[in-house]
Amino acid sequence: MSNNAELHGAEAADTRFSGVLAPVVTPFNADLTPDPVRLLDHCRWLASRQAGLAVFGTNSEANSLSLNERSMLLESLVVGGIDPVVMMPGTGSCALTDCVTLTTQAVKLGCKGVLVLPPFYYKGVSDDGLYRYYAEIIARVGSSDLRIYLYHIPQLTGVPLPLSLIDRLVKDYPESVVGIKDSGGDWSHTNALLQGGWKNFRVFCGSESFLLRNMQAGGAGCISATANVNPAAIHRLFRDWSQESAKELQEKLNLLREIYQSVPMIAALKATLAQFQDDPDWQRLRPPLMPLNQSEAAKLKQALAALNFEMPGVGGGGGG
Amino acid sequence: MSNNAELHGAEAADTRFSGVLAPVVTPFNADLTPDPVRLLDHCRWLASRQAGLAVFGTNSEANSLSLNERSMLLESLVVGGIDPVVMMPGTGSCALTDCVTLTTQAVKLGCKGVLVLPPFYYKGVSDDGLYRYYAEIIARVGSSDLRIYLYHIPQLTGVPLPLSLIDRLVKDYPESVVGIKDSGGDWSHTNALLQGGWKNFRVFCGSESFLLRNMQAGGAGCISATANVNPAAIHRLFRDWSQESAKELQEKLNLLREIYQSVPMIAALKATLAQFQDDPDWQRLRPPLMPLNQSEAAKLKQALAALNFEMPGVGGGGGG
Repeated sequence: MSNNAELHGAEAADTRFSGVLAPVVTPFNADLTPDPVRLLDHCRWLASRQAGLAVFGTNSEANSLSLNERSMLLESLVVGGIDPVVMMPGTGSCALTDCVTLTTQAVKLGCKGVLVLPPFYYKGVSDDGLYRYYAEIIARVGSSDLRIYLYHIPQLTGVPLPLSLIDRLVKDYPESVVGIKDSGGDWSHTNALLQGGWKNFRVFCGSESFLLRNMQAGGAGCISATANVNPAAIHRLFRDWSQESAKELQEKLNLLREIYQSVPMIAALKATLAQFQDDPDWQRLRPPLMPLNQSEAAKLKQALAALNFEMPGVGGGGGG
Repeated sequence: MSNNAELHGAEAADTRFSGVLAPVVTPFNADLTPDPVRLLDHCRWLASRQAGLAVFGTNSEANSLSLNERSMLLESLVVGGIDPVVMMPGTGSCALTDCVTLTTQAVKLGCKGVLVLPPFYYKGVSDDGLYRYYAEIIARVGSSDLRIYLYHIPQLTGVPLPLSLIDRLVKDYPESVVGIKDSGGDWSHTNALLQGGWKNFRVFCGSESFLLRNMQAGGAGCISATANVNPAAIHRLFRDWSQESAKELQEKLNLLREIYQSVPMIAALKATLAQFQDDPDWQRLRPPLMPLNQSEAAKLKQALAALNFEMPGVGGGGGG
């Protein structure tokens, strides 16, 4: 179990992540090329609200990007002034070689961690095969600075990461396999990870709806889609989870979360950015994903207005 | 429904595929880089047995290869003398841009077709989103020489291709979307595709165990894993499906198929190549896949021996 007392307030100095991270949505130009300028702007805004940057996650449409596109974006963020210490790029891929290439780049740039999906084309693969995938990555990247966060999201990969596999990886690579994002949506599974007994292993829930429970049970925080639009409030719960106000903060977060879960999530996050930045270009997604249809967009806008939802400072270059 | 009378014996001149294709297994070097030399040799052997070359299929571990690796292998096969008219490389990818890059290369090299998976990371995507993915590929490749074969394999992708989507694509792009490989393993689905009413649309089953039924119902052939080791016998059934001998040929093929389905298929195909080429290097797979364990390997070898299975001429540079 993680020692939360040490974590809080010591995020920057720690070599492992804790806190709230956003799987940063990826803006596209009219020709569907990714737009590094608007991505940088959004990352700045998020970082100014204490959100770590889990670029190239599920909500980033990362697997809809080529390796070169991800590589270019990562480079441009660091060149643009984003501190790599707040970055946990997703580098998992079906192809071992792609994962090694992008992970090596991330480590060289100084990213504090990487979020690594299992290879997700083949199903029913053996634990030995998954172990070998992660072991090869660690061997090929070959850096003591590598910090891998496993990414468990079986509803999309079809490839769960069994506890026995995690146990083997953490025991064999205690300095490299340092945490997990559990997006399975099953609290009993997250809780089993928290009870794994692995020293200083960082368990992130994949939704802020589990954040309070996760923190109470020794978790490290959350990596959540809605942190793209609501980072400050989620971070407040992370910071104040042991305070009396925590329950109310959690309930308020849940209300917003439910709105985004009632429509296609990624399209909805982009629609919200388009709305609050007054920039319809944010609505673009790469196929196979599609923007919200008119009725979904209207439903979302109305629901946000009913909560008096705002995104202060967004689109203003990170201030506010 | 396809007009089989015209197809048979007219394969080379046809701009659309018919016949038996092998999803060619990919050999790896000790460092897990793909080996273009042994791949070329295997492709020559297959082509000498009338097998079309569906390189970069599921059984090729294509999604375990980077885009650059697939691109290099494709180039090296054509440079090595493989006639692109017998090639149907798999070019589908989660990333639209990767698919466009590899498909463009295949068309420029003169490949007669490409086999295109749907993007397979996101699940539950809309028909409109899938339509847009294929439409973007067609628009971006922008060649009248492009011939797409859709690839339906929902047990691995989690993304089925609904009949309504296929109907829309074939009607909007009758010269570009010209066929499908149905690897779902459900004959009623294959049959529904054959009844689609699309002119000259080529339906391939994903296993030779459906080959006779597919041919009888107007199908175009099969693209089957075991064509890697048993191409001549499968082609015989394709050629003689309307003869009296067909039923017996099908039953004999089924016996061999069942052996490969009783062990991990890709590893088993590679073990067989290793055995008959006396080249243990063929046994390598990329993680997450693993070679057969000892008991599986022994079981396979014994079962093949019981059938007096042989691979004449394999490893001898395509002769035999």
